[in-house]
Amino acid sequence: MDEELDDFAMTERTRVRRHPERGVYDHETAYAILDEALYCHLGWVDPNGSPRIVPTIHVRAGNTLYVHGSNASRTLRSSREGGEVCVCVTLLDGLVLARSAFNHSMNYRSVVVYGVAREVTDPNEKWEAQRALVDHVVRGRSADARMPDQRELDQTTIMAIPLDEVSSKVRTGPPKDDEDDIDLGVWAGVLPFVQVPGEAIPSPDLRADVDIPAYVRRYERPGGGAGS
Amino acid sequence: MDEELDDFAMTERTRVRRHPERGVYDHETAYAILDEALYCHLGWVDPNGSPRIVPTIHVRAGNTLYVHGSNASRTLRSSREGGEVCVCVTLLDGLVLARSAFNHSMNYRSVVVYGVAREVTDPNEKWEAQRALVDHVVRGRSADARMPDQRELDQTTIMAIPLDEVSSKVRTGPPKDDEDDIDLGVWAGVLPFVQVPGEAIPSPDLRADVDIPAYVRRYERPGGGAGS
Repeated sequence: MDEELDDFAMTERTRVRRHPERGVYDHETAYAILDEALYCHLGWVDPNGSPRIVPTIHVRAGNTLYVHGSNASRTLRSSREGGEVCVCVTLLDGLVLARSAFNHSMNYRSVVVYGVAREVTDPNEKWEAQRALVDHVVRGRSADARMPDQRELDQTTIMAIPLDEVSSKVRTGPPKDDEDDIDLGVWAGVLPFVQVPGEAIPSPDLRADVDIPAYVRRYERPGGGAGS
Repeated sequence: MDEELDDFAMTERTRVRRHPERGVYDHETAYAILDEALYCHLGWVDPNGSPRIVPTIHVRAGNTLYVHGSNASRTLRSSREGGEVCVCVTLLDGLVLARSAFNHSMNYRSVVVYGVAREVTDPNEKWEAQRALVDHVVRGRSADARMPDQRELDQTTIMAIPLDEVSSKVRTGPPKDDEDDIDLGVWAGVLPFVQVPGEAIPSPDLRADVDIPAYVRRYERPGGGAGS
């Protein structure tokens, strides 16, 4: 980041209550998790007052989160709370096995964002957000793929959420057993997990002269991780 | 499954509108996705009417979904819709690169569950659910770990949601480009993703005579997948 940003202001709902030591409120941590995660879960309240969740893709641009509207968009527009949403991103890093079942946990990094979603209608902003969404999933892809024409853009809904009310939660390291349990003859430790790309499968109708591009062959997520 | 179950009855909110061809309503598909996923996202409406999401762990037992209450439990109890929740589980299987940005997609399997969460208070049910949660994450672990005492059980909140209003969404296979784009010199295909366990890291304070158990060394998810 070019400048040092103040921490996100903690609110009643972003204050991490369970395991408060895992709560992280700086921009850099939230940005890194949002940038690494391949997809998010978007939550909203439907006109009947019921909670709804849909998985979708997102991209961060500065302090704005863009999410692909998908099937949420129509419902969101009629949301009774004026487009209020919650976006959650979770990266699983490992299973934490303590001697006691009670102290089992996971190593993870998650971010929760609260805000009011605004539909992106400005043509330039929408174009840039669309390009950023493509490159968020596969870096460099937008320079290669056929980018959307006006008809396709019109069929796409993109929503923008300001990154103002945000908190991250991070757990790392070994299990934390109670003193009395340390000497039990039960294995304890961490089983790390990583999401990795396999071998690319060309489309059956692909032109024979088109090679797998480097951004697919050597796919990488920002932050050095391989995925969400 | 022991018996053939009818499909889940489709409701206004479980009917898959965007890409309806991806909607799947049978029990077997939903069960398999819920069983394979290591964690879920739990959504609810807080007393102010705002959407909330928290990642947590779950386990399916028959046609009931148990979720670890975590920090949602207190808020859920005061939820203005009487404990109405939405649970979403998403398994990413691959990135789908079409010639056109518009037809980019992901291969995934997801489940959405709507229902009213009931706090599990019956001691036997709570014990069984706790055991099942442990074994959902690491099969066989409950026979090894020190299981919770009464004080620990009392500190744990588990919620049960009936699997009645449920839909799955599944995308598989290659990209689907428009006819006009097929001959473009742009690579198209699928980059598969899999979540795999790494090498187990014993806790620094582990007794020297405790070996890594087989259920960690040869960790497997149900369904043959390696994780969510």
